[in-house]
Amino acid sequence: MSEPKSRRGRQRGSKANKHAESQEQPFKLMTRPYRPIDVLTEDEVEKVHQASLRILRDIGIRFDLEAAWDILEDHGCEVDRTDGLTKFPPEVVDHFLSQTASEFELVARNPERNLHIGGDHIHWGSASSAPNVMDLDNGRRPGTQADFENLVKLNHMIGSCHFHTGHPVEPIDAPPNTRHLTSTYAWLTLSDKVFRSYCIGDVRVKDALNMIEIGFGIDREELKRKARIQGIINVNSPLVMDAPLLEGAIELVKNGQCVIVSPVGLAGAMSPITLSGSLIQTNAEAIGVIAFLNMVQPGARLLYGVVTSPVDMKSGAPAMGVPETVTGTLAHGQMSRYYNMPQRQWLGSTSTAVDGQGAYESMMSIWGNLLSGSHMVAHAHGWMEGGLTSSYEKTIMDAQMIQMMGALNPRIPFDDLEEVIEAIGNVGPGGHFLNADHTMPRYMTAFHRPLISDWRPYEFWEASGSPDTAQRANVKWKAMLKAYQAPKMDAGIRDALDDYVARRKIEIGKMTI
Amino acid sequence: MSEPKSRRGRQRGSKANKHAESQEQPFKLMTRPYRPIDVLTEDEVEKVHQASLRILRDIGIRFDLEAAWDILEDHGCEVDRTDGLTKFPPEVVDHFLSQTASEFELVARNPERNLHIGGDHIHWGSASSAPNVMDLDNGRRPGTQADFENLVKLNHMIGSCHFHTGHPVEPIDAPPNTRHLTSTYAWLTLSDKVFRSYCIGDVRVKDALNMIEIGFGIDREELKRKARIQGIINVNSPLVMDAPLLEGAIELVKNGQCVIVSPVGLAGAMSPITLSGSLIQTNAEAIGVIAFLNMVQPGARLLYGVVTSPVDMKSGAPAMGVPETVTGTLAHGQMSRYYNMPQRQWLGSTSTAVDGQGAYESMMSIWGNLLSGSHMVAHAHGWMEGGLTSSYEKTIMDAQMIQMMGALNPRIPFDDLEEVIEAIGNVGPGGHFLNADHTMPRYMTAFHRPLISDWRPYEFWEASGSPDTAQRANVKWKAMLKAYQAPKMDAGIRDALDDYVARRKIEIGKMTI
Repeated sequence: MSEPKSRRGRQRGSKANKHAESQEQPFKLMTRPYRPIDVLTEDEVEKVHQASLRILRDIGIRFDLEAAWDILEDHGCEVDRTDGLTKFPPEVVDHFLSQTASEFELVARNPERNLHIGGDHIHWGSASSAPNVMDLDNGRRPGTQADFENLVKLNHMIGSCHFHTGHPVEPIDAPPNTRHLTSTYAWLTLSDKVFRSYCIGDVRVKDALNMIEIGFGIDREELKRKARIQGIINVNSPLVMDAPLLEGAIELVKNGQCVIVSPVGLAGAMSPITLSGSLIQTNAEAIGVIAFLNMVQPGARLLYGVVTSPVDMKSGAPAMGVPETVTGTLAHGQMSRYYNMPQRQWLGSTSTAVDGQGAYESMMSIWGNLLSGSHMVAHAHGWMEGGLTSSYEKTIMDAQMIQMMGALNPRIPFDDLEEVIEAIGNVGPGGHFLNADHTMPRYMTAFHRPLISDWRPYEFWEASGSPDTAQRANVKWKAMLKAYQAPKMDAGIRDALDDYVARRKIEIGKMTI
Repeated sequence: MSEPKSRRGRQRGSKANKHAESQEQPFKLMTRPYRPIDVLTEDEVEKVHQASLRILRDIGIRFDLEAAWDILEDHGCEVDRTDGLTKFPPEVVDHFLSQTASEFELVARNPERNLHIGGDHIHWGSASSAPNVMDLDNGRRPGTQADFENLVKLNHMIGSCHFHTGHPVEPIDAPPNTRHLTSTYAWLTLSDKVFRSYCIGDVRVKDALNMIEIGFGIDREELKRKARIQGIINVNSPLVMDAPLLEGAIELVKNGQCVIVSPVGLAGAMSPITLSGSLIQTNAEAIGVIAFLNMVQPGARLLYGVVTSPVDMKSGAPAMGVPETVTGTLAHGQMSRYYNMPQRQWLGSTSTAVDGQGAYESMMSIWGNLLSGSHMVAHAHGWMEGGLTSSYEKTIMDAQMIQMMGALNPRIPFDDLEEVIEAIGNVGPGGHFLNADHTMPRYMTAFHRPLISDWRPYEFWEASGSPDTAQRANVKWKAMLKAYQAPKMDAGIRDALDDYVARRKIEIGKMTI
């Protein structure tokens, strides 16, 4: 009898550990603690808008999708049908821009993880689209399906990760033609948080919408009522909107889903080198495309997703987490508020290592986002090397930093005022509060408790092998993955998803998408 | 002839390198880029003040210096002459508190390094008072005179280090009785920035004042006209003011010099565990002592130096760079503005390593200081392990972070508006700005250039040995120290300082101070 007992004991111990791990990471929605900071005067906001209108009227945006041209012409734009260069009358831009939804819900499979996009809410997402993955044990390497799924699981468990921005790492070993099927399947089954649709062509989006219907157990009418998935379209700056992205975005907004319009101001390369110039160009690009998507679907659920990322003029690499990014982020936030629409930003580091630079660059961006009133922050967990790599350890380190932000108090409560004065009187000059009546009931919950910060005395830390932040993060993500449990899903729904993916893999094998 | 030529060539090369190093670190004064953030309502500010007055009236502060008792009684306080417990009538506190100087100059030996304490100005200081020193080559060890002098030189060279907060590391091998003489000599001769007086007893302060007179070439009348040195007095919380610190502070304010009144709210240990409670106690301590120093010298040049630092309830260690510190810092800033006096804060990390945690904890505090409108930030370069260690590498990493803050733009200039629109039109859809007319004259100066951030592509970084942030900081501080040159000092002044120190060493050897 002794062996089974001991086995049960071990199991109980193991369950207790799992519980402890997951307790460290409760899912917690956040609101920004402070009012956004302005770097533009009201006059300057108006100046940016007027300059953007001039660019859209006099220079124009090239829309590379022929199917868009009729829509643009029908709504008052002037399209050069040889190349799609589209000029927007200012009143057309203003009219359609103003139709954008000012706030909306992003509905998750688990309703406790629904996001309210707008107002004071700030949501931090996973990394997305990195070609490489890195961890301390195996170094830097191209992403695989296994790494993609591991990072989806990890982001699912992290309480400060509110949504899957996209593929935390690209699964290079998954065939490109059917990758959207296996990825959507992974997001739906391995997690129950909001996730993303590939937005490259309408085939991928249609598959994602079909799978959402199956996964959520809803029909098309219900799907259209609320946004459940987000797509991101980058403008090909300067002033070009690629065909496949437009096709995907049209499909998403027609079905009531969310699209993030994201010109990336690589200042000095793809936009002017000055902050004013980069701001004006990317704002023009954003509002032109936003106006177009409202022509497709009035009241579209969109985010103003302009990002400023200066280019290091020595290496040509985008520099992330730098002062110019913060200033740009604050200005973009102001423009999105002027347009009364939600804002999407990102954060990341240029650092190649999970070290001091990796931390301070991300922290710079985290504060920029907090102070600009971003509603969704892409790439917030694990992005480094200017977006070329997702790191397991940095995912945890970023979670630590974001969770610190969640503990910032916008106000100090004074409900214990009389009690405090009494406590100070009781302790008196020269005493201490360690065992005071006022301290005892509060000491477990008074302060933010860290995820991987190590506050032990030096000697204890040294005796445990002097683990640095990255090494502690390494221990943490492994323990978390070990404790991972898939969120519940009805067996019938899972079977239907399996069937859908299997069928579509065969169909798509014959197509070019 | 060839050898001397070559030698001269090397010398020129070496000088050029020195020049290049020092160019990276120009001394640059800073103003805060944004308006301070409020975490207290006006009512709550008043509530904190009124609760503080109640504590001063009903509980009191114990002044351990007998010489202070007459002063306190003469100005309307009630002193228990058995133990110095002093109760302050509220109107006495308000009256003397209001006399504090609202802003003033801290004059350096080099007038280009004078500090204006007040308004929008924010100054970042060196670390101070750490018993240990650390670098990557030799690890952690007790501080020595050599390390102290090295760090004074390094802080002298760092452009974002505006003043010497105190001993960046305690020179344990310098005899305590005469350490103030050798340290003051080092600050005066190795640097020309504002520095600090030991504030333990009046003998040390008197020596510092005499040496300032010699070093600056001024007499006592001129000395009193402007603050040239700062002393820091920590309240021995809760509610005790130690005798030697009071003695030192009295000597400083009588001579027109600057005193920072700094209760440290180790919440949960030396002050109540709630932010409200800690704030009320430490504010009471600060304004009680500030009122006293204005009794000694009306219009005293003081800084409101309250700091919140929660205690990790697991280890008992003060936790730095945590969310509660930021919230506390913002509240302290509000109180200092309510009292119309300058604010001193600090920053540091609890981390034992120059790694991610070291960076994100300091970055947390850096932002807190920026947003609270601190006028002087102590310990801003190199403090770690909750103040127990000064690190050569962290000194450089902190400088990098602070220099990023110096590049934050409070406003975006729009002076190139027409030029930008023309550039966007010229480049057109699908082009690039890398060699645009608008880019070329600006690319060298458009963006903040980093001190140790590494933005090279991964492959280049790896080929150079994958140096992490701490390793790059190691290379940087060594290069800087190698290039160090002492600021100019008149030979007669230097001789006089030498004589003073030699004479006083003999005199003090016979005394107990």
